[in-house]
Amino acid sequence: RKGENFAKTIDKKHFGLRKEKLTHFRVYWHDILSGSNPSSVVINPPISNSSFFGSVTVIDNRLTTEVAVNSTLVGQAQGIYAATGQRDASALMVMNFAFKTGKYNGSSIAILGRNAVLTKVREMPVIGGSGLFRFARGYVEARTMWFDQKSGDATVEYSCYVLHY
Amino acid sequence: RKGENFAKTIDKKHFGLRKEKLTHFRVYWHDILSGSNPSSVVINPPISNSSFFGSVTVIDNRLTTEVAVNSTLVGQAQGIYAATGQRDASALMVMNFAFKTGKYNGSSIAILGRNAVLTKVREMPVIGGSGLFRFARGYVEARTMWFDQKSGDATVEYSCYVLHY
Repeated sequence: RKGENFAKTIDKKHFGLRKEKLTHFRVYWHDILSGSNPSSVVINPPISNSSFFGSVTVIDNRLTTEVAVNSTLVGQAQGIYAATGQRDASALMVMNFAFKTGKYNGSSIAILGRNAVLTKVREMPVIGGSGLFRFARGYVEARTMWFDQKSGDATVEYSCYVLHY
Repeated sequence: RKGENFAKTIDKKHFGLRKEKLTHFRVYWHDILSGSNPSSVVINPPISNSSFFGSVTVIDNRLTTEVAVNSTLVGQAQGIYAATGQRDASALMVMNFAFKTGKYNGSSIAILGRNAVLTKVREMPVIGGSGLFRFARGYVEARTMWFDQKSGDATVEYSCYVLHY
């Protein structure tokens, strides 16, 4: 009957999957809310002024090789985060790290997890990837390098461990 | 050239991955919209009053061991859900179960899936985890225990099957 067999089994070799390898890298994620060209923009305000709960932010943040904002750019962190803690400063992070240099150009990893921003080291899952990071699984460890109370700007180190083919 | 070799392959043993184990647990997810301290707040209204389609809700819902709201708290469900069905009552769920007790304190699982809320049993994927639930894969079965038509409050049982290291 119509529409019943749109899917069919193909040979797994199509994927040409060899052995999984573990890749590690550190990138610096720059959350810039201030200035004339912010990369992180609130698209929904908090529900009250007693906490950030309910706020939603869209980001296209620089990913660089060093802590300095203008160090070598390796990609962009594009996604959203929502303030989802009513009693703890934590956010739901849903973002892609899109890489732009060398062999990783055009590849990405997808991160979705809980970011308890005041905790020294926060762990979030890598839930997938594309290109060289196809079938990615793993996790990132996020550490805040600096945070400007006034502007809200921050640089966070993402130490990423990615298992992929 | 600059920025091209920021990533390197490391030994998988770094992960110290032994055998995957399957963990099962039941928690009760309390979606409280009513009262002075709701844990579930609509941050974007539906696009029309003919259905919920388009509405976005942010949650920091209690996760307890029994159906009763004030039974033992084991964690919080922090995330967002969006009403994504135009002809069916279904939602996109994107949430972290952040656990707070015993050895699971600080660990979490990430759930992303389709919640057909009027269906007796709804299955959603577990797409990742952190801490003890690192590399988590699995699924949850959601069953509505009670739903208050007037206030919109509900308690839903989440029976979670998680494969992890």
